[in-house]
Amino acid sequence: MQPTDGPLTFEELQLATRNRGMPLEALRYDITPVGLHYLLIHFDIPRIDVRDWRLTISDFNEPVALAYDEIRALPRTTLPVTMECAGNGRARLHPRPLSNPWLNEAIGTAEWSGTSLWPILERAGLPRDTAEIVFRGADPGIQGGVEHFYERSLTPAEVQRPEVLLAYEMNGRPLEPQHGFPVRLIVPGWYGMTSVKWLTSIRTVTVPFTGYQQTPAYHFTGSEDEEGEPVQRIRPRALMVPPGVPDYFSRHRFLDASRVAVFGRAWSGSAEVTKVELGIDGVWSEATLGESVGQFAWRSWSFAWDATPGEHVLSCRATDAAGAVQPIEQPWNYQGMGNNSVQTVAVTVR
Amino acid sequence: MQPTDGPLTFEELQLATRNRGMPLEALRYDITPVGLHYLLIHFDIPRIDVRDWRLTISDFNEPVALAYDEIRALPRTTLPVTMECAGNGRARLHPRPLSNPWLNEAIGTAEWSGTSLWPILERAGLPRDTAEIVFRGADPGIQGGVEHFYERSLTPAEVQRPEVLLAYEMNGRPLEPQHGFPVRLIVPGWYGMTSVKWLTSIRTVTVPFTGYQQTPAYHFTGSEDEEGEPVQRIRPRALMVPPGVPDYFSRHRFLDASRVAVFGRAWSGSAEVTKVELGIDGVWSEATLGESVGQFAWRSWSFAWDATPGEHVLSCRATDAAGAVQPIEQPWNYQGMGNNSVQTVAVTVR
Repeated sequence: MQPTDGPLTFEELQLATRNRGMPLEALRYDITPVGLHYLLIHFDIPRIDVRDWRLTISDFNEPVALAYDEIRALPRTTLPVTMECAGNGRARLHPRPLSNPWLNEAIGTAEWSGTSLWPILERAGLPRDTAEIVFRGADPGIQGGVEHFYERSLTPAEVQRPEVLLAYEMNGRPLEPQHGFPVRLIVPGWYGMTSVKWLTSIRTVTVPFTGYQQTPAYHFTGSEDEEGEPVQRIRPRALMVPPGVPDYFSRHRFLDASRVAVFGRAWSGSAEVTKVELGIDGVWSEATLGESVGQFAWRSWSFAWDATPGEHVLSCRATDAAGAVQPIEQPWNYQGMGNNSVQTVAVTVR
Repeated sequence: MQPTDGPLTFEELQLATRNRGMPLEALRYDITPVGLHYLLIHFDIPRIDVRDWRLTISDFNEPVALAYDEIRALPRTTLPVTMECAGNGRARLHPRPLSNPWLNEAIGTAEWSGTSLWPILERAGLPRDTAEIVFRGADPGIQGGVEHFYERSLTPAEVQRPEVLLAYEMNGRPLEPQHGFPVRLIVPGWYGMTSVKWLTSIRTVTVPFTGYQQTPAYHFTGSEDEEGEPVQRIRPRALMVPPGVPDYFSRHRFLDASRVAVFGRAWSGSAEVTKVELGIDGVWSEATLGESVGQFAWRSWSFAWDATPGEHVLSCRATDAAGAVQPIEQPWNYQGMGNNSVQTVAVTVR
């Protein structure tokens, strides 16, 4: 299916009614409630009986199969992590790549508890000729004409990061089924497709993995034929809680003239966010940064806006310590990946 | 905005990415996990500090204001309740009324804990000239050009039902913000618009309430000008877990030839579901009914289907004890309310 400037398709609607965005007023919570975190599920939520479930670690020097309770008995780490779908912003591209039609809301920050992955793999013994490690989920389906289980790979260097977790709790409770029960991968800093849900196996491969979800999917590419560059770390983004009150259908915002505290969050998967700017009718001013919720989680920002009567357009943009800054307009790509162009909110001040 | 046979609008997409359907494979759970229950939020999720929050009961003989802990200290009831959005099925109507574009998924069954409303109102003393009782939520916004807080009314006879709850827990935990924290109304058997979230006040009125969400909204009507009949109890509906595995984009289903247990749920707000039929390529057969999860909650059904190679279309329909049966095609209405026409699922058997 080629990208289109045509109207939204029935297939996109089906995806939008299944998958779930975070309403932007939920930016106010440091930790997103479970039922407000974004969800993107390629196939179906699988049915897993935890008594039968094992995580098999194969093609290692000493293969092993771990039960749920065995994983829970390992040293426990809890990390707040901001996660974002690589397709966030897709439906704002022209032409529009055909997949889940996200606008801005495919985000969330949860407190994930689990155990570091690397000590387990180290114990199993990484074969010397390992090129990558492949993570398989329990969810089968068809995409791009290929029937497969959802699978993604990482290099040994990536999985050695201590913050890469086998997670079994979200916000202090066992994972709900849609978030990967019983155990999922969490890879802080990377877009969400990397954090494989419903893990069933981890294996090594001696050549780079080319399963569908690794290649061709999740690449920055200019066309169907070009391979392009893999999508990996989350690009910087700032979002604001739309101020005032909404009109139900248009979501247009209305507020009374006053000094308004515009509030939002900003994050980047590559480096700390060092600056957030609020644009008011095209004039940018620096916002005040709050603390980060954690090393791998968003930070708050705010700006006191003297809202005067009339029609206004607010925007916000983040810059990170690596110098990356959100673009006003996004260079287009064929799959609609990583569109972190700035959010704009139209407001009528009365 | 007039109903349209045109393509999906940007406004409908904005609503679909905010609001949340239940992926139909979640029909397998007796009780829907919190993060999979449908959500329809007219305005924004309000920010409420429970320490400042009071539920004011005014225009009664002895007005009262109750704090959260006071409500929690009252006798506790727990009820599984199937809830459905009155607009479920809207986007399958032709022409399509413009609002949240639900297909089939605006449903969920939660276990709500709270206290019966009527003893509280009885203690406050219902004035003799009470026509209706009005419930206000903390969420302001604009709809149909009218700025208001979300409000709905019920007659004294309705609120005397012991199963009408002030609910403060969902599935055994305090309400998440999007489900009405700290306290919401639960009206079993009625469509979800009645179960006002983020309750702040309950008051009596001496003439039938005509706030926007009561009239003109939520009416079965043939045009913008006609008043029509109020939407109240949930019409019967059966839904199935789509069998087999999906194609990501089209959601078309594939499965291998075999005997397949087709599974689903059925419910009605007026009377018990007494029959569910599965249609296979237009031929209807009776499914086996399971137990109800509760008096006000869905019941399971199943059917053993000998799936033979080829293209098939599955449908399901429920009949309730009051004799209501789901239609194959729905008589159209202007607001897109109560469209319980049967679900169809196309399956390729290999």
